[in-house]
Amino acid sequence: MAGITSILLDLFIIFALAKTVAEVFTRLRQPVVVGEIMLGIIIGPNALGVVGEPAGALTEIFHGDPETAKEALGIVFEIMAELGVIVLLFFVGLETRIGDIVQVGRRAGLVAILGIAAPFILGLSFMLLIGRPQVEAVFVGTALVGTSTAIAARVLRDMGFIGSPVARIIIGAAVIDDVLSLLLLTVVTGMGEGDGIHFTEILIISAQALAMIALIALFGPPGARRYSLHLLRLRIPHAHLIVAIILMLGLATLSGRMGLAAIIGAFLAGMVLAESKESFDFERDTIPFYEFFVPFFFVITGMQVDPEVLLDVEVILISVGVIALAIAGKVIGCGIGAWGMGPRTAAIVGVAMSPRGEVGLIVASVGLSLATISHEIFSVVVVMSIVTTMLAPPVMVALFRGYQPEEPTKVEAPAPVPHVVRRPYQRRRQQGSGDDA
Amino acid sequence: MAGITSILLDLFIIFALAKTVAEVFTRLRQPVVVGEIMLGIIIGPNALGVVGEPAGALTEIFHGDPETAKEALGIVFEIMAELGVIVLLFFVGLETRIGDIVQVGRRAGLVAILGIAAPFILGLSFMLLIGRPQVEAVFVGTALVGTSTAIAARVLRDMGFIGSPVARIIIGAAVIDDVLSLLLLTVVTGMGEGDGIHFTEILIISAQALAMIALIALFGPPGARRYSLHLLRLRIPHAHLIVAIILMLGLATLSGRMGLAAIIGAFLAGMVLAESKESFDFERDTIPFYEFFVPFFFVITGMQVDPEVLLDVEVILISVGVIALAIAGKVIGCGIGAWGMGPRTAAIVGVAMSPRGEVGLIVASVGLSLATISHEIFSVVVVMSIVTTMLAPPVMVALFRGYQPEEPTKVEAPAPVPHVVRRPYQRRRQQGSGDDA
Repeated sequence: MAGITSILLDLFIIFALAKTVAEVFTRLRQPVVVGEIMLGIIIGPNALGVVGEPAGALTEIFHGDPETAKEALGIVFEIMAELGVIVLLFFVGLETRIGDIVQVGRRAGLVAILGIAAPFILGLSFMLLIGRPQVEAVFVGTALVGTSTAIAARVLRDMGFIGSPVARIIIGAAVIDDVLSLLLLTVVTGMGEGDGIHFTEILIISAQALAMIALIALFGPPGARRYSLHLLRLRIPHAHLIVAIILMLGLATLSGRMGLAAIIGAFLAGMVLAESKESFDFERDTIPFYEFFVPFFFVITGMQVDPEVLLDVEVILISVGVIALAIAGKVIGCGIGAWGMGPRTAAIVGVAMSPRGEVGLIVASVGLSLATISHEIFSVVVVMSIVTTMLAPPVMVALFRGYQPEEPTKVEAPAPVPHVVRRPYQRRRQQGSGDDA
Repeated sequence: MAGITSILLDLFIIFALAKTVAEVFTRLRQPVVVGEIMLGIIIGPNALGVVGEPAGALTEIFHGDPETAKEALGIVFEIMAELGVIVLLFFVGLETRIGDIVQVGRRAGLVAILGIAAPFILGLSFMLLIGRPQVEAVFVGTALVGTSTAIAARVLRDMGFIGSPVARIIIGAAVIDDVLSLLLLTVVTGMGEGDGIHFTEILIISAQALAMIALIALFGPPGARRYSLHLLRLRIPHAHLIVAIILMLGLATLSGRMGLAAIIGAFLAGMVLAESKESFDFERDTIPFYEFFVPFFFVITGMQVDPEVLLDVEVILISVGVIALAIAGKVIGCGIGAWGMGPRTAAIVGVAMSPRGEVGLIVASVGLSLATISHEIFSVVVVMSIVTTMLAPPVMVALFRGYQPEEPTKVEAPAPVPHVVRRPYQRRRQQGSGDDA
């Protein structure tokens, strides 16, 4: 009992401080997500240790072994963080119309592929140039590939731009990115295990993933439109909320079991429900989950950083180079992909795609667990993930100031829609000075 | 990653099956809580093992040790169950007006004290009569003392009676019960540890507990009434929801740290917010938490049962005796306490107080961990907790059929209130045949 209470206390501290920081950052007009990550770094076990240190009562459960107790506490944190990122991507999906993604599909694909190629080649070349082993170079290249959909989506959401065309391209490209970078991680993992690249296995995972996404994207929305009214026949209260949670957890687990990130399934679940007649109800009723779970993801991601790694000179030098290339790779690659939309939009897309967040941290932990990379390179990848994550939001805030997006779909749009009925980001545009028109 | 996905899969299975069972039991007009506990017994690791068995990937995190992985998975389940019972009691508090509890305070106190004395004496005597050691007898007596506020509250809520006078007495008595039985557990624990009863320690815990409850009950509601409007000044969205979560988790953790059950704090948090102007908003916005977390508590409680213990003849015989005394003790003790309210109301109170649920399970696990009781007696207490929990809801459903509660506060009530503006339980009364009028 006392062990459980000590975990509850940690969860309470994280939640209460995260909301305090959110209030302060909102008043300072700074992105809340940066505040949450910084909070995690400060209170985490590597710095102040306010949370994440198992209490004596918890250690007792694991027969007095503090290491195992810490790992068990880490599992609880990971589950809370995973539920947080699942709810976040579910929300992003709920605010994404499949028609909009298809409309921006070609552009998003271009942004994703160029945004993968550029940082991979830059990272690989840099590591080989400074004389690191080939497998480590391939690994760092892979770590630079992924985009944290979560961070980009959170900043877009916080600023009220989630419904804008540029947001659709960013989210679309980030989802394509996630799929492709996780496939690349599978390849690199095969290399790291030293028994060659399993092309058959990679092909199977790729085929499964693409089949799942295609099936859900094709049949989910019409199904949601047709069957949504049948929910009224269920006898349990709040049936549509329960169906939403089941679909969200179910697809997240399914995509996790298929070797993809669980967030892809959560995003697809949200996108399917966005097409149903009750999409507004789904969003209103799941807001409490958003408010409760999402901060855990960002605070706990911050907690994984060890501030001490920054004291090693070699780590600092390599980090600076890798961070520069991580940002340059995405800004150049994605920027070229989005060039036709105007320079400011291209810059926004490039910067929005640059935070590596949880994707970089996942690659880093896989590499370390396989002993494919040294502990220094692990630290470099972690620092790169954090710095790109923390740099992107303020730059995005600056770039969005007075931003007037250029419509990417002038030809395909059925008719010009009056400004008053557009999505919430419109409010911001009216306040801005419109210097990018 | 795969280890986390396997835990997510378990959580998904529990939630999806619990809601399926809820739909079936609602259609069969049976209490949903019984379905959830039965589901837990069936899918738990002691029976089918659909959930609760750590996957290979999770075992890997704990260096291939399946026992430790299972304990870590158990911690995740316990946290989910704990959050479930916290949210449940928060809701009960939110539907309890402090004035109503004070109104029924004397009656509730009488019900609680007689309902503690009778089963304790009956259990203790029975165990001594069949020749078990004294410490084990005291222990079984203690296990019979507690009342599962959660089960009683859930059934009252499911049936729409939570606002009725009899519900206020039951909840009030159950809360007093919780405090007194946890103090008793402290005494028994001291005895079990063999170094005498620490009267000073017990006095300190008792004083702390009573001080906390008195302070919150006295100053919370006026504070909530006075300061509720200040929430509008916060800049973060959904401020009142966030304040509610912080208060709920904060007071739950605080009461847990003070050696009380965390649910007492959660109940007090709900009761404080019930006095604020936004009490309706709090309830509406926290419903998703109720729907999500509460089933985990009941399914996971069911998972802790090992159906095989029922095959031992001695365990069966002792269990039958202990179960009979557990029910008789509460029905007689609480029934006498509530006698003045009419025989049917007295019977409802007695039956509602008889489920031992999580309280019985807590006492059982403490006893086993201290090696105070044998494994057979542990099984007896577990079976008693489950059987009393499963018997009470259907009996309550039967007793409530056509129930016309007698007002316990005819003298104190300011004026007769027309039926149309009363609480939801009124709806049921109008449907019933009113044979207890």
